[in-house]
Amino acid sequence: MNEAYERAAYERLEQRWKKISCLEHATSILDWDEATMMPPGAAPQRGDAVAGLELLKHEFVCASETQKDLQSALAGREQLSTWQQSNLLLMQRIVDRSALLPPRLVEETSKVVSASQMAWREHRKNNDWKNMLPHLEKVFQLKKEAAQILSQKNGRTPYECLMDIYEANLSEAKVNHLFESLRSFLPDFLKKVLKAQSEIKTVKASGPFAIAKQQKLGRMIAEKIGFNFERGRLDISHHPFCGGTPQDVRITTRYTEDDFLSSLFGVLHETGHAKYEQNLPAEWTTQPVGRALGMMIHESQSLITEMQISKGSSFLKFLLPLLKAEFTSASDSPEAWSLQNFVRNCSWVKPDFIRVEADEVTYPLHIVLRYEIERDLINGSLRVDEIPAIWDEKMRSYLGIDTSGNYKNGCLQDIHWPAGLVGYFPCYTLGALTAAQFFKALKEKHPQVNEELGAGNFKTVNAWLGENVYANASLYPAEELIQKVTGKPLDTEAFLAHLNERYLQAR
Amino acid sequence: MNEAYERAAYERLEQRWKKISCLEHATSILDWDEATMMPPGAAPQRGDAVAGLELLKHEFVCASETQKDLQSALAGREQLSTWQQSNLLLMQRIVDRSALLPPRLVEETSKVVSASQMAWREHRKNNDWKNMLPHLEKVFQLKKEAAQILSQKNGRTPYECLMDIYEANLSEAKVNHLFESLRSFLPDFLKKVLKAQSEIKTVKASGPFAIAKQQKLGRMIAEKIGFNFERGRLDISHHPFCGGTPQDVRITTRYTEDDFLSSLFGVLHETGHAKYEQNLPAEWTTQPVGRALGMMIHESQSLITEMQISKGSSFLKFLLPLLKAEFTSASDSPEAWSLQNFVRNCSWVKPDFIRVEADEVTYPLHIVLRYEIERDLINGSLRVDEIPAIWDEKMRSYLGIDTSGNYKNGCLQDIHWPAGLVGYFPCYTLGALTAAQFFKALKEKHPQVNEELGAGNFKTVNAWLGENVYANASLYPAEELIQKVTGKPLDTEAFLAHLNERYLQAR
Repeated sequence: MNEAYERAAYERLEQRWKKISCLEHATSILDWDEATMMPPGAAPQRGDAVAGLELLKHEFVCASETQKDLQSALAGREQLSTWQQSNLLLMQRIVDRSALLPPRLVEETSKVVSASQMAWREHRKNNDWKNMLPHLEKVFQLKKEAAQILSQKNGRTPYECLMDIYEANLSEAKVNHLFESLRSFLPDFLKKVLKAQSEIKTVKASGPFAIAKQQKLGRMIAEKIGFNFERGRLDISHHPFCGGTPQDVRITTRYTEDDFLSSLFGVLHETGHAKYEQNLPAEWTTQPVGRALGMMIHESQSLITEMQISKGSSFLKFLLPLLKAEFTSASDSPEAWSLQNFVRNCSWVKPDFIRVEADEVTYPLHIVLRYEIERDLINGSLRVDEIPAIWDEKMRSYLGIDTSGNYKNGCLQDIHWPAGLVGYFPCYTLGALTAAQFFKALKEKHPQVNEELGAGNFKTVNAWLGENVYANASLYPAEELIQKVTGKPLDTEAFLAHLNERYLQAR
Repeated sequence: MNEAYERAAYERLEQRWKKISCLEHATSILDWDEATMMPPGAAPQRGDAVAGLELLKHEFVCASETQKDLQSALAGREQLSTWQQSNLLLMQRIVDRSALLPPRLVEETSKVVSASQMAWREHRKNNDWKNMLPHLEKVFQLKKEAAQILSQKNGRTPYECLMDIYEANLSEAKVNHLFESLRSFLPDFLKKVLKAQSEIKTVKASGPFAIAKQQKLGRMIAEKIGFNFERGRLDISHHPFCGGTPQDVRITTRYTEDDFLSSLFGVLHETGHAKYEQNLPAEWTTQPVGRALGMMIHESQSLITEMQISKGSSFLKFLLPLLKAEFTSASDSPEAWSLQNFVRNCSWVKPDFIRVEADEVTYPLHIVLRYEIERDLINGSLRVDEIPAIWDEKMRSYLGIDTSGNYKNGCLQDIHWPAGLVGYFPCYTLGALTAAQFFKALKEKHPQVNEELGAGNFKTVNAWLGENVYANASLYPAEELIQKVTGKPLDTEAFLAHLNERYLQAR
């Protein structure tokens, strides 16, 4: 072994990842197509094709040449740049994880998950738990199998091995600790908020709110805050998401004529994800280090945009006249379009069924519920057929809501489980905590930022996020990034202070 | 070598083609996406990704294991079924052709062609020949290089080697012979038709024809004649095409409010292609023998639908009331919606600029023009920068039209050259000849078919095409299929008789 040999091994790995990124490009666009464009009868063949592509990727990642080059390159890692070193360690993580999973399991999971997502679209619509159950049983069976294989190798819990796919190195202990802090705070706080709210009134604009107008406005505001439509699209899907590739980001939302806030904040949420993707360093785009960090950091970007910024009174002051111009109708009372009423409508707290439409105060309780259920499913203390009962029980106890028999807006509301995204949910609330901690740091550095947002000026925000988050891609692990950017590890302080300020003080 | 070994080799080849078909699935949908959905800024990365996928496919096809298995399977081909034997011979064709082309050339062609198509969309709009020229020079340079490599190996002309990609075994001599027959007939015939036409008048409905209505109607009629929307879509693109995969066929058209016939016959044309794809035998879908035959037969399917059937007076009788119901306006004269006037409008002959909107009489002359130009470009007797001059000269001499300076509706009107589809054009007119010969055979077998079409009944047509064309996929070579179905080799007799009947007798 010598330095030139080790460097050549590293360079072969980069070339190999360029090939892998072509396969990933294809599956990203095919996934978007499946959710937005694909005719239903194409599902079986699409399932086979995507499974085949996943298997090809798996073969590239696990090839003996890859593993050999990895060993050589690791031996000579001191001669590499910081970015190359991080890239190499990320490759090692991917190879280690993939090499443990048998190709048969990877391919079967891809097929099962594709069929299960198509089934979910149908069965959710029909509130049909019975016919969805066998699909979910297959999905969880395969996820458990994968988790156990990984767990036996690295000694972490099976559920930790699944969380690891979405955010590296999370431990159940850490998540429990943070979630305990929320759980000990939120119920009392929620009561206080609801009590305070009972003394104020809000009025709604009468509508209906034409979908074409909502689309136009969503597009305009997404562009205003930084979405680049030269390298992205906004479409419709059953469940809003951000997909595609960094050079071609595809976000979606869903519309109803009764309400414009739901689609709009859907767009703002996905735009937060999209800006992260669109501003990753282009020169690393085919390499692991050039990708977005895990989903905790990704969610911090959607939530800093949707919750910290867009639902703040400064930005709402900017937003209101734009909405008023489109959506005022003759029968609206003047109060319906007052700033105070608008701010209250945008931060109204109401324990309700649907996670993606939940307010900031109740949202974490939705996540705690899903976290507890999927963790127990994977750890084996809960069966898939018991989901509806435990769901109903927890919704009653955490949010005071009766979901019995309402699968559509209960345990079938999210695509995550049908899509096999087990271990993903905690990232949403960890992302909310991170968003609050980031925005606090941003405001300390730039005290004028709220004033700028009130004028629809995103320059400071985008420059700060660009420098501190986007440009770093996956150079540092998440915990190191949070420490660098905010000066301390992740905790609940900024988030709880934010809730207190917005939902009690400012009322 | 023994039988079991040879059979196992054949089975490994089928498995390998299953993998290849996953890559082809991806590139088919990505190609459709690029033409209909992709934001322009994503083009460079998409070009890289598709080039990478093409290269992967090339590597699979040319792998030494493939070539070794091919030799073993060929040695034992007698034990295979008829379908398997055809499949094997088609694999051999693909491997032989691909193995001769260096991966560097395949990858570069894919990238150049992707950039060139994006450039064409822009430059065509701006009538900008100068900025399109370097793209076309690169494309033709690469196609010439590929043609010369193939020609040196198999002794056929370079241009024949390119035609071969779209329809197997065409010779310049055969094409020249058929095209000579057309060229000796059409100019005089065109004069007679124009003279006869000068004595009749047509009226147009006043419009405008709302695009939403055109979309609804196009969809309804496509479905009526057999397009399956459970496994397909209809969208908009700059140039109409039929893409996707047999289980997910994606057709496109383009709309203008001034005219509904252009978008409608665009849909009918692509529906002809689509029905062929959608009705190929599903059990062979991942294998070469399960694909549609070459583009000559594919065009015969679009043209039997668009020209032979849909522009025949029987089907127009069925179509007219549907159009009338949607598009009548108060200012229309009653004559505008008479059947005689409608039939005349649908079969009006007018030498004009745009090939895809040309009538059946002048269309072959557009093709002869392109055929002569691209053949001479490849054979080296013409340079790319000479295209506009020779284009203008031939348009003047064949169709009496002055195209000078009008690149947009002249030599930049088609996507074929920017897309690297050199050798494709002759298939359109060979397809027209085949369509006429097929429809003649169909009418001889089922003399009542025109009556059925007048009632919007496609059962007989679809059953005949299903049995004679769709179900055979690539089991027989094209010339053998034509002989089997019509009892004689391809000639111009049925086509010229059809033109004579529709454009002189029936007037």
